[in-house]
Amino acid sequence: MAIHVVVWGENIHDRENDVVRGIYPNGMHGTIAEALNADPAIEATTATMEQPEHGLPRDRLAETDVLTWWGHRNHGGVSDEIVERVAERVWQGMGLLVLHSGHFSKIFKKLMGTPCSLTWREAGEKERVWVINRGHPIAQGLDPHFVIPQTEMYGEPFAVPEPMETVFISWYDGGEVFRSGLTFQRGAGRIFYFSPGHEVYPIYHDENVQAVLRNAVKWAANPAPALTGITDAPNRPVNEALEPIVERGPTLHEPGEIGFR
Amino acid sequence: MAIHVVVWGENIHDRENDVVRGIYPNGMHGTIAEALNADPAIEATTATMEQPEHGLPRDRLAETDVLTWWGHRNHGGVSDEIVERVAERVWQGMGLLVLHSGHFSKIFKKLMGTPCSLTWREAGEKERVWVINRGHPIAQGLDPHFVIPQTEMYGEPFAVPEPMETVFISWYDGGEVFRSGLTFQRGAGRIFYFSPGHEVYPIYHDENVQAVLRNAVKWAANPAPALTGITDAPNRPVNEALEPIVERGPTLHEPGEIGFR
Amino acid sequence: MAIHVVVWGENIHDRENDVVRGIYPNGMHGTIAEALNADPAIEATTATMEQPEHGLPRDRLAETDVLTWWGHRNHGGVSDEIVERVAERVWQGMGLLVLHSGHFSKIFKKLMGTPCSLTWREAGEKERVWVINRGHPIAQGLDPHFVIPQTEMYGEPFAVPEPMETVFISWYDGGEVFRSGLTFQRGAGRIFYFSPGHEVYPIYHDENVQAVLRNAVKWAANPAPALTGITDAPNRPVNEALEPIVERGPTLHEPGEIGFR
Amino acid sequence: MAIHVVVWGENIHDRENDVVRGIYPNGMHGTIAEALNADPAIEATTATMEQPEHGLPRDRLAETDVLTWWGHRNHGGVSDEIVERVAERVWQGMGLLVLHSGHFSKIFKKLMGTPCSLTWREAGEKERVWVINRGHPIAQGLDPHFVIPQTEMYGEPFAVPEPMETVFISWYDGGEVFRSGLTFQRGAGRIFYFSPGHEVYPIYHDENVQAVLRNAVKWAANPAPALTGITDAPNRPVNEALEPIVERGPTLHEPGEIGFR
Repeated sequence: MAIHVVVWGENIHDRENDVVRGIYPNGMHGTIAEALNADPAIEATTATMEQPEHGLPRDRLAETDVLTWWGHRNHGGVSDEIVERVAERVWQGMGLLVLHSGHFSKIFKKLMGTPCSLTWREAGEKERVWVINRGHPIAQGLDPHFVIPQTEMYGEPFAVPEPMETVFISWYDGGEVFRSGLTFQRGAGRIFYFSPGHEVYPIYHDENVQAVLRNAVKWAANPAPALTGITDAPNRPVNEALEPIVERGPTLHEPGEIGFR
Repeated sequence: MAIHVVVWGENIHDRENDVVRGIYPNGMHGTIAEALNADPAIEATTATMEQPEHGLPRDRLAETDVLTWWGHRNHGGVSDEIVERVAERVWQGMGLLVLHSGHFSKIFKKLMGTPCSLTWREAGEKERVWVINRGHPIAQGLDPHFVIPQTEMYGEPFAVPEPMETVFISWYDGGEVFRSGLTFQRGAGRIFYFSPGHEVYPIYHDENVQAVLRNAVKWAANPAPALTGITDAPNRPVNEALEPIVERGPTLHEPGEIGFR
Repeated sequence: MAIHVVVWGENIHDRENDVVRGIYPNGMHGTIAEALNADPAIEATTATMEQPEHGLPRDRLAETDVLTWWGHRNHGGVSDEIVERVAERVWQGMGLLVLHSGHFSKIFKKLMGTPCSLTWREAGEKERVWVINRGHPIAQGLDPHFVIPQTEMYGEPFAVPEPMETVFISWYDGGEVFRSGLTFQRGAGRIFYFSPGHEVYPIYHDENVQAVLRNAVKWAANPAPALTGITDAPNRPVNEALEPIVERGPTLHEPGEIGFR
Repeated sequence: MAIHVVVWGENIHDRENDVVRGIYPNGMHGTIAEALNADPAIEATTATMEQPEHGLPRDRLAETDVLTWWGHRNHGGVSDEIVERVAERVWQGMGLLVLHSGHFSKIFKKLMGTPCSLTWREAGEKERVWVINRGHPIAQGLDPHFVIPQTEMYGEPFAVPEPMETVFISWYDGGEVFRSGLTFQRGAGRIFYFSPGHEVYPIYHDENVQAVLRNAVKWAANPAPALTGITDAPNRPVNEALEPIVERGPTLHEPGEIGFR
């Protein structure tokens, strides 16, 4: 059964900026979705910010295996309610690919618990992406390193928690380094952050970048049933204890109470 | 120089519940602060929810090395602004000890990026805390395991990210297990979650629990200067690049622009 | 294409001890292989210690996707050369499942870099295995916890490095806890340690245990090409540098030299 | 009380190579020890390979808080017995700093459980070391990045396990990157690998490098009592179980037996 992917795009510079429109006539989300659909195991559609509920109604998210997130111009404009909704689906098991300037998106900051800040320079310099973890599924088919001819520099320190795995580290012409491919897990959801992707360069047309995205979608897709109860904190009453115990001492909660929040 | 600790208490059950008041006449925060002050390297004071700004004005937090957090009855009543303020100080380097029912506090959920849910039972059963990482500073002076005679059971699954270190795991009479002592890092801030501490039992009078709290305060105190700029994303202009580079291609940002949020 | 598994058994108690022979007439390795082969995606064969090269000649290992390891009576009798050979295949990408008393095998200690010690008691007591990471592939299809009616207790502290993931933690009748399912990665090879499996109890006939083994095989199989050069440290000569550089200063190595070991 | 450090040097190129002798008249170990002793909290002495027991008799190691290891020319000449001895002390709690070409030392490979391979180039190129984890004790007092004017390039992939923390990443003139400062823990022992330090350049005279070494020594020193029993696997007899249990079923071990190895 195919992996269902929703490619989310902020779709502002895609429409308003001539340079971006020239490179991505169908929007970056359109190009990314097309690249993913080149793999028969993947069925990718798009959603954009200006749509109702940002294109992410509950029933659509419930059927999404992996969501990719690109935003830049207006992170603050994303509804808190939708962010909470996406986070819940990640905890339940939906994969999430956070792309480039998405490092500052509400959803990434919420899932990381850190500022997700970095340094940056928009000079069209060269980036060389090194594969650090060669056996990782996300790195399959890649050479030991590949070049992105023109990139926006993203530099360390990158204020994220220690990752589960460092898959890529980038070298820049101007002297910086960056952990450009990192994995995390939150609940049952696998998260991959990938930094290449500035909108005024044709980075999502790059074949290595496209290969990374396809690999990452497959890695992030978790076939386990959704953990729909993961936000619950169920009471285990004394009379249902796995081992026989006798209640002792005072209590705060009434029988059947659901606990405080 | 002494480690400055603020012991934060929700102070609701402490005042309103007769059982809790009987065990902790000065509030749980009072007992915890007293236990910490038994160590001459620590200077602990208290702050409570009903105070202005929950007792945590900016200048006080700025001088706090480690904050301990106990809340249960009214997590939702904690101001979002104060939560954001505390998170920033953690990112800058302030240590944070999250205690017992604080697992569901806004600040812990924000820093973890997960639901922080668990299972629970209030039956006064026995908990045996096993030291998993015997060389860890937080475990110093403890026996290989110690018993809390009456406890509220907190059971797995505990919906937190993989910890940096698992320091303690608890065994319960009723058949459950729980990762009762876990470390995390967010920015420059060290975080320790410790589950024992239900308010209707005298757990914060227990000498092993008190030893853990003192050890954890010392572990969490980071003497490095505060990373006050950790939420910034500074631009590194082309003409200040560490290696000489020439700007190439189109740009999105104007010179001197501060970037999007 | 099927996952090729070799189930390695020490095969000493299997032949010499009446109790073990009664429970496992075809050896524990035979029972484990049969359990794995119940999944059409897996093709499992067996190898035992008394065979030439312990049943693990180079060409067989080269075609093995996942190796499972059970030993107890004579870890010291395993050839260092074979241990080195297995380690190299793990680094190249072969998965490894280390079972029960295999915690003290040469191969596990070599890959962990720690003593891998623990505490133990052989009393046929009850073990309850809790799923800590419910979304993990190794836990699929399991209930939140399952019971092994008669087990050998393995207790903390378990002297292994912090794992990549804690999948299971066990509760014992006698009061101990144990991290009974842990994942690690070494090179491109995924490693899963699973503690249930004492030879005088019918644990490998248990359906939950068998499900864990099948899941773990699928998780550990890495379809990436073998990293056959992972032990090499190649020189990158100046004249082949990715960016043009000029050699400066004294050197220790002659051109074309392969480096020291 | 001062931190007792032993600075171990292979002391071959230090004596035999004119260039090295010119830069380090007292050996690299001499320069490193002097740099450490500049901090009054540290008492560093040296040990070298040609001494009896490589200068590391048991009683000296027993009183060593942190050992630093530099070797290159003859890793294979280090006695396996001494390697085992050092590993045991690390597991017990002794800190270990592995320097530069020590990546291929027996002790580092033993503790990592991986090949520890990398790529290299000896061209005196520039290395820029970036601080990734700014709040880490090992990075205190450093600028966000510092330059080593002439270095041997060490490049990724570096075949070590995922570290506990990535403290430094290096950028090289020739286009490579390297995780140049990594922390690990094995047993109670903290391990820091730091790559700068090629013998034909004056790297250990660099003030930033010296600051890193002093910081790392303080970070690695574990004041906890040595875990002298960490390689033992003690039996917990039924009649001493923490919770009353009754022995059930067959057994393999005789009462009082110490278990198999």
